[in-house]
Amino acid sequence: MHDNDGTRTPVTVIGLGLMGRAIAATALRDGHPTTVWNRTAEKATELVARGARLAETAGDAVAASPLVIVCVTDYDAVREILEPLGGSMDGRVLVNLTSGTSEVARETAGWVARQGGVCLDGAIMASPPAIGTADAAILYSGPRPIFDQYEATLGSVGAAIHLGEDHGLSSLHEVAVLGLMWGILNGFVQGAAVLGAAGVKAAAFAPLAIRGIETVTGWLPGYARQIDDGAYPGDDSTIDIHLAAMAHVVHESEALGVNVELSRLTKTLADRAVADGHGGSSYAAMIEQFRKVTART
Amino acid sequence: MHDNDGTRTPVTVIGLGLMGRAIAATALRDGHPTTVWNRTAEKATELVARGARLAETAGDAVAASPLVIVCVTDYDAVREILEPLGGSMDGRVLVNLTSGTSEVARETAGWVARQGGVCLDGAIMASPPAIGTADAAILYSGPRPIFDQYEATLGSVGAAIHLGEDHGLSSLHEVAVLGLMWGILNGFVQGAAVLGAAGVKAAAFAPLAIRGIETVTGWLPGYARQIDDGAYPGDDSTIDIHLAAMAHVVHESEALGVNVELSRLTKTLADRAVADGHGGSSYAAMIEQFRKVTART
Ligand SMILES: NC(=O)c1ccc[n+]([C@@H]2O[C@H](COP(=O)([O-])OP(=O)(O)OC[C@H]3O[C@@H](n4cnc5c(N)ncnc54)[C@H](OP(=O)(O)O)[C@@H]3O)[C@@H](O)[C@H]2O)c1
Ligand SMILES: NC(=O)c1ccc[n+]([C@@H]2O[C@H](COP(=O)([O-])OP(=O)(O)OC[C@H]3O[C@@H](n4cnc5c(N)ncnc54)[C@H](OP(=O)(O)O)[C@@H]3O)[C@@H](O)[C@H]2O)c1
Repeated sequence: MHDNDGTRTPVTVIGLGLMGRAIAATALRDGHPTTVWNRTAEKATELVARGARLAETAGDAVAASPLVIVCVTDYDAVREILEPLGGSMDGRVLVNLTSGTSEVARETAGWVARQGGVCLDGAIMASPPAIGTADAAILYSGPRPIFDQYEATLGSVGAAIHLGEDHGLSSLHEVAVLGLMWGILNGFVQGAAVLGAAGVKAAAFAPLAIRGIETVTGWLPGYARQIDDGAYPGDDSTIDIHLAAMAHVVHESEALGVNVELSRLTKTLADRAVADGHGGSSYAAMIEQFRKVTART
Repeated sequence: MHDNDGTRTPVTVIGLGLMGRAIAATALRDGHPTTVWNRTAEKATELVARGARLAETAGDAVAASPLVIVCVTDYDAVREILEPLGGSMDGRVLVNLTSGTSEVARETAGWVARQGGVCLDGAIMASPPAIGTADAAILYSGPRPIFDQYEATLGSVGAAIHLGEDHGLSSLHEVAVLGLMWGILNGFVQGAAVLGAAGVKAAAFAPLAIRGIETVTGWLPGYARQIDDGAYPGDDSTIDIHLAAMAHVVHESEALGVNVELSRLTKTLADRAVADGHGGSSYAAMIEQFRKVTART
């Protein structure tokens, strides 16, 4: 129940879904005394066989370790598990790796504080197989001294990045990265559908897709600077050029019978940017189509 | 007008927009006798200063070199430039790097063949600054022997990849990669809008975005295999898990006043996949939402 050498902190993991099991397995791998709890106890079987202690109740699980990691479906589940425990949060550090909005992340951190605990909110930018490797980035927000105190332990889950004190920051960054993730995934399956309709295998598309992703990724730091400067010189490519290509993509997809809802929305957003006078601007100017309505002219 | 040592083939570049100028500059850099033509002649000034010959008419430009690269806005522009020339295509190799659909690419190749020329259709997977480097992938389709004959010359524009004989293949692959490109770009500007509304700079988002992109890119070969196998085991993450996160993203974006059209469409597509029984499948199952309507149950 005490810190040992600073890296073998006893750890509790609550929630043993795909992600929670990967986290608990990593804690065990790294020699942390590991207590687990899950609503459906059977999911703990393999972890127990590898040395985890299965707590009978969520309250026992919280009492077992100074560091309590929670990773369940959503914050409603977090509150359903934790609220009956109340005072047992006293002196605990709750690391909440559940996805949610910044608002509920802040609310939950506030509730933990009122119970005498401290909260770090985290967001996992990886899938379970990467957990326990440096490929898994985990974004944290909350009190820096607490992060520093447990950095070694958190580092066993993945590369730990502290964003700031505001408990909402990890959720906000997660939302930002998730949109990008679905952009890639939808772009890939849409592209595979287009090529598949023409008889090309997805496995043949993947290397070209990856090459294309690397190319576009190289543009982002420059576009980020343009966004921060509020100026979008279209020196290399303009929204007008993109728009012409978008029309081809819609047309080609329709000819192949591929769903064009996403392509049409992409084109609609670009059409609006041109209507706003950004036809000659770089794609970075598209941010104005996403910004809050009150900020648009 | 003749091949010299096989790598200093005289080259004509028609269309001196952002991309055409980059291509012509590369031909000059690599020592090709370079003839250029553009509807608006002034755009040739800098190239002429660097040694390019400005043709007076498009016909003169075509006559000047065995290899004629055309890169203009769209295929309508290609036809507008080439159709009056008719027979002067005789014996020429037309490399069409203009974006368009596979259908017009095939039609244009057919028209060139009827005029006695040969066509390679190409698609540029890069922006102008990368032209002339190995970072620029250029996808070609059309007769393999012609590609082989001019591979060294085409290689000076960028890494030349031959996809197959069907002239539509480069356009089809371009459509597939473009959708992915806009997925990334929209995901990035949307994420920058979310974080910007919370006071975080786009420059601070860029490194995390790039890290997230790298993570997701690593999943694509596995998802490609699932797509080709038609089986989508959700061993690491399921559409149900994505859907819960999509709800947070929509909610968070609304709270920040960020445009949610794209996030809502993403969620709608995932909702349909769940309704189709794919809640427990991996994201690769989303391809069924993009495939042709007649293929859906
Ligand atoms: N999987 C990924 O690739 C990934 C990546 C990044 C972030 N995440 C995030 O990690 C979190 C967990 O994801 P996952 O993949 O582990 O999901 P999962 O496999 O669906 O597991 C969900 C977990 O939440 C528990 N749970 C749900 N509602 C509950 C309730 N009302 N009371 C008690 N327990 C409840 C489940 O318990 P039962 O076993 O009893 O149902 C299970 O342990 C989510 O917020 C997700 O967004 C996942
Ligand atoms: N820029 C990129 O990042 C990029 C990347 C990949 C692919 N591409 C593709 O490359 C092609 C050219 O793009 P770009 O960036 O060079 O575009 P751009 O800068 O807008 O240049 C367009 C070119 O097309 C010419 N043109 C248009 N309509 C014409 C007509 N009816 N008759 C004669 N010439 C006409 C223009 O001539 P004027 O100068 O007389 O107007 C100009 O030379 C497009 O298909 C684009 O999709 C571009």
